[in-house]
Amino acid sequence: MRILICNDDGIHAPGISVLHSAMKKFGERHVIAPDVERSAAGHAITLADPIKSMPVDKNGEFFGYGIGGTPADCIKLAVCAILKDTPPDLIVSGINLGSNTGISVIYSGTVSAATEGVVLGIPGVAFSLCTYTDPEWETAGRIASEITQKLIETPMPPNVLLNVNIPNLPYEQLKGIKVTRMGRSRFIEKFHKRLDPRGRTYYWLDGELEVHDNGENIDIHAVRDGYVSITPIHLDLTAYDHLKTFQPLEKMF
Amino acid sequence: MRILICNDDGIHAPGISVLHSAMKKFGERHVIAPDVERSAAGHAITLADPIKSMPVDKNGEFFGYGIGGTPADCIKLAVCAILKDTPPDLIVSGINLGSNTGISVIYSGTVSAATEGVVLGIPGVAFSLCTYTDPEWETAGRIASEITQKLIETPMPPNVLLNVNIPNLPYEQLKGIKVTRMGRSRFIEKFHKRLDPRGRTYYWLDGELEVHDNGENIDIHAVRDGYVSITPIHLDLTAYDHLKTFQPLEKMF
Repeated sequence: MRILICNDDGIHAPGISVLHSAMKKFGERHVIAPDVERSAAGHAITLADPIKSMPVDKNGEFFGYGIGGTPADCIKLAVCAILKDTPPDLIVSGINLGSNTGISVIYSGTVSAATEGVVLGIPGVAFSLCTYTDPEWETAGRIASEITQKLIETPMPPNVLLNVNIPNLPYEQLKGIKVTRMGRSRFIEKFHKRLDPRGRTYYWLDGELEVHDNGENIDIHAVRDGYVSITPIHLDLTAYDHLKTFQPLEKMF
Repeated sequence: MRILICNDDGIHAPGISVLHSAMKKFGERHVIAPDVERSAAGHAITLADPIKSMPVDKNGEFFGYGIGGTPADCIKLAVCAILKDTPPDLIVSGINLGSNTGISVIYSGTVSAATEGVVLGIPGVAFSLCTYTDPEWETAGRIASEITQKLIETPMPPNVLLNVNIPNLPYEQLKGIKVTRMGRSRFIEKFHKRLDPRGRTYYWLDGELEVHDNGENIDIHAVRDGYVSITPIHLDLTAYDHLKTFQPLEKMF
């Protein structure tokens, strides 16, 4: 089995090393990830510029390729160029430091790596550990390994990826696993407005997630309650419920 | 009525001037758009860096603010800072040079501006003119104006944006309007692999859209057949069809 490993925190982040170790028992590992942090890269790709690729060592050994691009760039480059003749069987992304639940999913570079895998016909899973401080990497690595094991036993359907969010708890304190939906939520943004040393305005974004969803089965609450949240995500953004709503526009002409 | 105008081709692109003119009759216009081209920016946002804002003139008059960020950044900054006390009633994005149909939607900065509007509770519409050469801007401007007129008469439901793709034809040759879904498709990627002047590898992405969908009602075919395509897009990426598929994972623990 051939596993492609990516993230959005960059190839030097600790989470990708944890994921790399967790994947060891499943076969051949290929790390192809952004050379620097690309958090909140969304599904950006690089068209107008070249994309550089540099080998990166960790602990004195070759670890993977650091790519001067976004997570989606890394996956495209890996599947369509670097590993073209030996395509991966599975793409794993992460382990992200910080949750990717609710509306965060649309901004997440971690998720977009898995999304791009699915676009290219390869199953993809994104892993995030829901904390910014004192990460329980051991829990996260173990969960990543166990879920991967299950997905190898029961292959994934096409056109769907999994978004896995892991509570920051010791493994023994996890309550279980919940299959969830993306919780309705938004960021309450706050821009810090300042002047640069030359007197010109700049802004810096800050914000907090606000949940607008009291549903039973949402990703945000599952994690809060100590469950590993697994959300299946698809690529079709059509609002089917609203095809009829807009039908009258067809009569405009 | 207060209209916020954005794009991903940058504030200096001709398409945003066409859209600006097309919106004139509806009220107060505010252009807040990337300072340079940000095509294929996806739903990226800028967290780790400051975002600069500079006034931009066109034809000797103030036109709007050029923002050192992505389309989604522009919308957040506009709604939550620059226009905080007088929020826009509608966000229009474009007019993009090149189509945003099929899987392109997930990479599109043009669409992401409208998406971000909807995240913030403001109706959003993305307009794209489906060509890279000899653009029929007059057609595109007229369609943008007519659709906006309709959306003012019949307000949009929440949590949905419209992705409008306009065939590159003289107005009289348009066949009509079709409400469509996002066509299943992917890019067949080709990476050009080269060496930089210092002998280091770089890649440059190239690709062509391949359609995997023979459905009746898809965006790509509507445009090909001479219809303006209107696709309602929503924010919830949950693959509801597959919640059951993955339920067995809950028993892993």
